[in-house]
Amino acid sequence: MSNRPTLHTVLSPRLLDLYDISNSVVVIIDVFRATSTIATALFNGAARVIPVDSVDLCIQLGKSTGGITAGERDGKVIEGLAYGNSPAEYPRSFVEGKTLVLTTTNGTKLLHKALHNGATEVVTGSFPNLSAVCDHLLSQNKSVFLGCSAWKDRFNIEDALFAGAVIEQVKEHFTIHCDSSLMAEEMYRLHKNNMHRFIRQTTHWHRLASYGLEKDLEYCVTEDVANVLPVYHNGDLVVKT
Amino acid sequence: MSNRPTLHTVLSPRLLDLYDISNSVVVIIDVFRATSTIATALFNGAARVIPVDSVDLCIQLGKSTGGITAGERDGKVIEGLAYGNSPAEYPRSFVEGKTLVLTTTNGTKLLHKALHNGATEVVTGSFPNLSAVCDHLLSQNKSVFLGCSAWKDRFNIEDALFAGAVIEQVKEHFTIHCDSSLMAEEMYRLHKNNMHRFIRQTTHWHRLASYGLEKDLEYCVTEDVANVLPVYHNGDLVVKT
Repeated sequence: MSNRPTLHTVLSPRLLDLYDISNSVVVIIDVFRATSTIATALFNGAARVIPVDSVDLCIQLGKSTGGITAGERDGKVIEGLAYGNSPAEYPRSFVEGKTLVLTTTNGTKLLHKALHNGATEVVTGSFPNLSAVCDHLLSQNKSVFLGCSAWKDRFNIEDALFAGAVIEQVKEHFTIHCDSSLMAEEMYRLHKNNMHRFIRQTTHWHRLASYGLEKDLEYCVTEDVANVLPVYHNGDLVVKT
Repeated sequence: MSNRPTLHTVLSPRLLDLYDISNSVVVIIDVFRATSTIATALFNGAARVIPVDSVDLCIQLGKSTGGITAGERDGKVIEGLAYGNSPAEYPRSFVEGKTLVLTTTNGTKLLHKALHNGATEVVTGSFPNLSAVCDHLLSQNKSVFLGCSAWKDRFNIEDALFAGAVIEQVKEHFTIHCDSSLMAEEMYRLHKNNMHRFIRQTTHWHRLASYGLEKDLEYCVTEDVANVLPVYHNGDLVVKT
């Protein structure tokens, strides 16, 4: 009926294998807070962000690149690393021109899986760079997978909400037969005007808000405040030019 | 704060391993159409339903038990079996006192996984037996997992809607910190008054409606028309008495 490329939403890294993602663009989504921090650091002039899934690798790459090492457990900077996971820690005055080595378990796992499974291009998405993601997807004429990083492989609401935000903007240009996408779009439409209130109901809010990160989480659902497109290339996330 | 048991929703058999389901009741949900057909056959007096995941096993058990063999592919009865997967095929006049051997891939896979992972009790749920499921869960004071059978491990909307219907009825009696449950309840609340129209948007509708099964699918989202509780015991699903 139409030659529009397909779009799917994948609700957990554990479900990525169910799809053929070759010749596709995969959008890695980790709203609280990895992909929001990545967009923010790059928007503020970081030269690159290196996503890693272990503290040891973070320390090692921090040494070899001279980069900023960053990562948290339970709301505190991990011992041996220098900074945390908050986008607020990376203003232009601090991060411009630098390399950020960021420890993120859920997002990095999905990113590596997407590469291993043959994605043509891997980019990262979050509310702060929503429009940059949508503009890029519309320009590519390729199949798209919106990959939710989830939390230890369990579904989370906030990543689905971002998938829904993308779908609302781009759906006329894709063929979508995917209940995950239908659900994501409906959840986003239901809550886009009460996002700050709604995220207080999520499991992630309850995990992080007890560490005083309410402002951080509200920033992470604010659209287009760090509107660049991070694209993965040889180990680095850099701004697509 | 409270000693209420926990409740989780599991959106795909592929995600069941993420949870400790020992000492729990697992509700197998396969709205279109296995668990709806199971409730209906047992409500109409079937002695038992034997769920199997292969055609060969269905034929073999049909012979050894003298039971009715049932299963479909692409809307047609599978060669070698006698009947299909539609609840409408199992009125009391036909099924009373008989054994039904039912081929169902998604639901049976989840059921076997739940048993293998140590569930204390496995029951099946669908809109036709919604109240029976809720009444049972409220009587047990055990942790609950609402297990969506999904479609080839991919998330589907209709199983989540049923999970949401259960949650709406029982949530005051459980501790729920689970984004899948939050989403399921919101999707159900959003659509409970337009269910017949909404299910026309699902991927399953598009797969099955082309075989003329619209009435079947509408029956499968009708609440409490076959209100018994199927419970698994030694290979059989029988009515909990």
